Order: sequence, then structure tokens, then C-alpha cells
Amino acid sequence: FKSRLPSVGTTIFTTMSALAAEHEAINLGQGFPDFPCDRALIEEVNSAMLANHNQYPPMIGIKGLRDGVAQKITTLYGHAYDPDSEITITAGGTQAIMTAILACVSPGDEVIIIEPAYDSYRPSIELAGGIPIAVSLMVHRDEQGQVNSYAIPWDALTNAINKNTRLLIINTPHNPTGMVWKSSDLERLAQLLKNTNVLVMSDEVYEHMVYDGQQHHSIAGNPALASRSFLISSFGKTYHVTGWKIGYIAAPQSMMQEFRKVHQFNVFTVNTPMQYALAVYLKNEQHYLSLPHFYQAKREFFRNGLKDTDFKLSPTPASYFQCADYTGLKIPQAKSNEADFCTWLTTEVGVAAIPVSAFYKQPVESGVIRFCFAKQEQTLHTALQRLQSI
Amino acid sequence: FKSRLPSVGTTIFTTMSALAAEHEAINLGQGFPDFPCDRALIEEVNSAMLANHNQYPPMIGIKGLRDGVAQKITTLYGHAYDPDSEITITAGGTQAIMTAILACVSPGDEVIIIEPAYDSYRPSIELAGGIPIAVSLMVHRDEQGQVNSYAIPWDALTNAINKNTRLLIINTPHNPTGMVWKSSDLERLAQLLKNTNVLVMSDEVYEHMVYDGQQHHSIAGNPALASRSFLISSFGKTYHVTGWKIGYIAAPQSMMQEFRKVHQFNVFTVNTPMQYALAVYLKNEQHYLSLPHFYQAKREFFRNGLKDTDFKLSPTPASYFQCADYTGLKIPQAKSNEADFCTWLTTEVGVAAIPVSAFYKQPVESGVIRFCFAKQEQTLHTALQRLQSI
Ligand SMILES: CSCCC(=O)C(=O)O
Ligand SMILES: CSCCC(=O)C(=O)O
Repeated sequence: FKSRLPSVGTTIFTTMSALAAEHEAINLGQGFPDFPCDRALIEEVNSAMLANHNQYPPMIGIKGLRDGVAQKITTLYGHAYDPDSEITITAGGTQAIMTAILACVSPGDEVIIIEPAYDSYRPSIELAGGIPIAVSLMVHRDEQGQVNSYAIPWDALTNAINKNTRLLIINTPHNPTGMVWKSSDLERLAQLLKNTNVLVMSDEVYEHMVYDGQQHHSIAGNPALASRSFLISSFGKTYHVTGWKIGYIAAPQSMMQEFRKVHQFNVFTVNTPMQYALAVYLKNEQHYLSLPHFYQAKREFFRNGLKDTDFKLSPTPASYFQCADYTGLKIPQAKSNEADFCTWLTTEVGVAAIPVSAFYKQPVESGVIRFCFAKQEQTLHTALQRLQSI
Repeated sequence: FKSRLPSVGTTIFTTMSALAAEHEAINLGQGFPDFPCDRALIEEVNSAMLANHNQYPPMIGIKGLRDGVAQKITTLYGHAYDPDSEITITAGGTQAIMTAILACVSPGDEVIIIEPAYDSYRPSIELAGGIPIAVSLMVHRDEQGQVNSYAIPWDALTNAINKNTRLLIINTPHNPTGMVWKSSDLERLAQLLKNTNVLVMSDEVYEHMVYDGQQHHSIAGNPALASRSFLISSFGKTYHVTGWKIGYIAAPQSMMQEFRKVHQFNVFTVNTPMQYALAVYLKNEQHYLSLPHFYQAKREFFRNGLKDTDFKLSPTPASYFQCADYTGLKIPQAKSNEADFCTWLTTEVGVAAIPVSAFYKQPVESGVIRFCFAKQEQTLHTALQRLQSI
């Protein structure tokens, strides 16, 4: 059987979640919350099912939900997407990513990704016949070697762009580092792309998890970028229901038209009762407006718990991930590679994490792992006790 | 924007459903029931959500559901797929089709489809860079020109196979004709493919809608075929919940491994609470065992209602579709093409149907449209009154 994805194995998230389950470790690996979603949201799904909203919805998503998404984007980022021709409901962020890439990348096209990068970008590009061109975030460190910040590699980006470049993928807030694109960064990107035909895919699934009073800057808020970009987000991340597999994509009509051609033959449509439920629930903007406060408290709790350990913590300006360098731990395992370290941490310490090396083809940083702190305080407390005991 | 699918428009199902909604026509076009699913199934979803089954399930699907599917296939068709390595839960039949095709078709590979064919096969093949090779079902007619039966075009199939053939797609029970593959047909196919490397994708989403005391014959029941085949089915069709977008694929391990590589980066996983609900509900085999009786009564009701009209009815040995030739109607519209006829039928008569020509690239039959009879008796009754009044 000739493989279409010869270099691909099982995703690290699946592997680590399975290992965590097998060893009854606390799973701070894969990015999902362990606390319940709002009961009111569940009740909306139940009502929708009882109201017989169980058959095929419109291919592009139900109108109420598309309207709600358009309204939210306008309110928060100031760009008015037309809900009928510029927004499509997807089976989660991952399906939106695959579908957008299949719709716009042709064999031989180059697609620039910025590593560390979410692990679905590269195989999606390869399946489309495209060529992934990876550049790396710049890692700034202090004198102790501790990561201060990550920065956009402008020179590498500039050099990577050529006439074969079809698409550039950005991810803000960034998984796994939590780096956010500032409004001036988006402006600079718009300038860089000005005389090119390069499209932009902006993965913004952590848009509502930005801390310390900072704002998320969406490509939707930059007109020059918005006109050449797909914007992807996820209800699963925002509403604590990652297993519902529902998200959306927004793009100018000419791009959306092509996206929908693929979407309709990929999944055709997305879960009807969940769409109805979210269409109602989305109106409560208090939910997502409260997320920065909610998750920032968890970030503080988790970081505080690691303060007196030998883990070196990277900053987490956004996202629900905390990256940590384990190479200063005074144990033999501190010398092992990231994957081995995570396996050991899961099976022996009882805490699962994700090796940041899995977000790179050729890692430029080493000894760093990612914890997800979207957990109940009790879960974090127990995990911290275990990590402190190393 | 260079299109990856230049010859593709909006699917006929979307187009006709939208037209039906706009004109408040009775929608006998797109294949979905208009009656409620079992309340007990809804209650299972609600329980699963309340039990916090709202986060990412395992990438391949929850164990309970995979076990249930494996058990069902063994009981009904006598083949034991390993639930852990040979069954994957998908976001409906369509996602399974796209994913399987992307996993096994490489640029330049030929894929044989048998027309009339479900409209996602061709674009999925094209997106993979494959070349669709269409052969047509043979249409047998009686002296009045009325369709007696459809038959497998063995000669055309034999001629179509060559060293570039990667995949053959079969669909039994067949949409739109209701044709079923007999066990001897599967045997003959196994013989035909014996010394080739051709894989088979068998779309069996209507497996539980076979009438007149006949049985569905799955490729799973033919060991020689099962070892080279992907089997696709749909919980949406079987449980009257087409909008839940949940189905499955079964295949030998070596094929499933490649399928999952694509699946994990396409949708990653499938709706968690619906999986839990179906895992429980699937145990009630009475549901699917009762479907032939349930749908056969609807078929009879609908066919009876058209008996004294000038529509010529094709046989419907299976599926929930009734094909009809409208060219004998004594009205000017009887001369128009299928798409125009369906538009007129929807907007002027108030009954939506699907042109069978939409299932062909180059139609070999004309003047035939497809009605879906998976509707409440009252719905069918009103639709019949309108059709009788033409
Ligand atoms: C789809 S599984 C991965 C979830 C996620 O976003 C992450 O853990 O990075
Ligand atoms: C996925 S929309 C089409 C549904 C269907 O199977 C049909 O109407 O043929």
C-alpha cells in the first residue's frame, strides 16, 4: 500500500493521550479542558434535538450561527464578513485547515509555515501536493538561557517568499508558545505581501485566551490582510467542548466559494443540533469576554506551582499552554530528548505533556515541553505536587 | 484564484433543498427523513453530555462504538474486523469517502466509478489528483420503454481495468437506482480483480433498506473482496439523524493505518456525545432489523400513489429513493431536461426531486428524476396529491 503520507505517524496528541490513559496519568498533554461546559449549552443541544433539528443542515451552516459569527467578528475586530457568502461552519478547526489547504494549494505550490507549528499543517499541505517551507520563530533568551519571548522571523519570512509561494500560515495566539501577533506585526505582514499573490491562513482558535490586559489582533482587523486571508476559529476551544468538533472559517467571497467546493465533498455539513445550540448560546458574549480572566487565573496558579522547581518557564502571554524547559532538572532524565522525557513524565511521574519538538520538522530549540493548564484547580494541584516531587 | 475543482458547482442536493425551502415545496429531493429519530437516542446524547463526554474522544472513535460496529458486521455479514485496528468512526459517509480516497489515490491513478454515482466520488478523486474513469450501469427496459432493472456492466468494467487502476468504487444498495449487488456479483468482482492490485471502496450507507425479503450483501461477506476493500456506512441514514454526521469505515489493518493518517489531520475526531449515545443505542438491533418493513411500507404507499399518473416508475429493490421517468407526462414540461423539470416541479408543483442526470458526467438515460420517500405518510400524501394533479 503506497502511502500518501509516508512520513506521518499517529499525532503526538493521540499518542500522549493514550499513554496518559493507560498509565492513569494526569493529562496535561492534548489541549482540552477537564471541567464541564455550561449546563445551559447542553440544554440548548437537547432542545434542538427535541425540536427535530437532527437532519442535514444547509451545507454552509445554519443561518443563525453564521449570523452570530459575523456579528461577533464585526464587534470584536471591526470587519464585516457577509454571513451568507463569507462564513462557513466546519467540523472543527482541523477540518477547516485541511479543507482550506486542499482548496487553495495545487501540486508544486509552496506554503510557508512558522515552526513550532500545529502538526496538521504540514500533512495537509503534503496531501494537496504542496511543498511546506518552514521558517522558525526567533527565540529570545535572557542571560540564564531562559526564554524571554518569541519573535516573528521577518528576514526568514522575506527570504522564503518567492513566485511559487501560494500560502502563508500564521497562528495567533500561537500554539504552543502563546506568542501573539501585534497589530504592527500584521501591518508589517500586509506590507511584505503587498506585491505578491500570497494568501494567508490565520489560525486563531485561541483568540479568546489573551492575558495581562492585552488584546487579540485578528487578521480580520487588518483590511489589507483580510482581503487575502482565511480566518479559522473553534467553538470547541471557546466553549469548553472540544469533542463537539465545530468551528468556522471566514474569508472573502472569491476564496470562500472555492473553500465550499471542497467542504461540501469533504464533510458536506456539520452537526445540526450543536449548530442550533451554539447559535443561541453565542449571543451571550459574557462567556468569551470572561475567558481571559478565567484562564489567566489558571495560568497564575500553574506557574506559581512551578516557581520553586527547576523547570524554566517560558512566558505565556496567551493560549492555554505553558511551555517549560526541563534541562535544568537535577535528574538523569533531564538529558533525554523531549519525546523520551514526556514518556517518562507520563509513565513515572504521572503527568502527561507534549514535546515541543513535535511541532518542528527540524527543532531549533530543545529540552522544552508543553503543559495544558485548562484544568480544574484540583487537577492542576495534583499535577503540580507530582512535578514538584521530581 | 485558481480552482482545485474547476468543474464543480454547488451540489445538486444543496441547490434543490434551498429551492424547495424558498418555494415552500415538499422536499423529496435530498435523502433525509422528515420524521423524528427515537426519543431514546436523544436521551442518550443528553446523558452523555451531562456525563461530561464533551471533550476530544480517541482519534479512531470511542471503543464502545467501534466494538458495536465490529459486532454488528460480524453478526450480519460474517466478517470479524478488529475494532481497534480495522474500524474508524467518521464524520459521516461523505467524510469517510473523501478521506479514503485521499489516503489511497495518488496523482495519475485511475479510479473506476459506476454511474449514476453519488456526486462526491468524482471531486474527491480529482482532489487526490486521480483520474475518474466512469462506466455506466446497464439499463434494461421492457417493450414500453419502462425500466425493468439495472445491471452491472461487466464488460465495461473489465475493459476499464488496467495497470493504472488504483481503486474501484461500488455502492450497494445503490443511490439513486436502488440496485443491489447479489452475492454472485461480489463473487464475480472478486474473480475479476484477482490478479490486480485494485482496491475497492464499497459505499453501503443504505445497507438496512433492502426490500421484498431480499438481503444486503456486503463486501465484508466476501473474504476475497474484504481483504482489498474499504467498507463505508452511516449512522445518520440508519438512525434517522442525517444531521449528526456520523458514520464509519472498516478495512483491513494495512489500509486502515493509511486511512487514519489522513483522518487525523482531516477532522481529527468525531462528535463525542453522539458517539456515546450510538454506542448504547446500537445494541438494540431491533431498530435496524425493522427498517426494511418500515421503509417498504413507505415505498408501497408512494408507488401506489403514482400508479395512475403518467410517471413511469423504475423498480426500487432497495434504498429510500424512487426513480421515475417523466417523459410520458402529457404536458410541455415533459420535453425539458431533468434539471429544468426538477426546477419546474419544485417551484410550480411544489414537490422537489433530484435529476438523475446529476449522477452522471455523460448521462446514458434521460428523463428520469429521483424522489426520496423517507417521509411521513402525511408528507407523501400531500406530495402525491400534487404529483397526481399534474
Ligand atoms: C486536535 S488534538 C490537539 C489539540 C490541540 O489543539 C493541541 O493540543 O495542540
Ligand atoms: C449529503 S447530501 C445527499 C444525501 C444523499 O445521500 C442523497 O440525497 O443522495
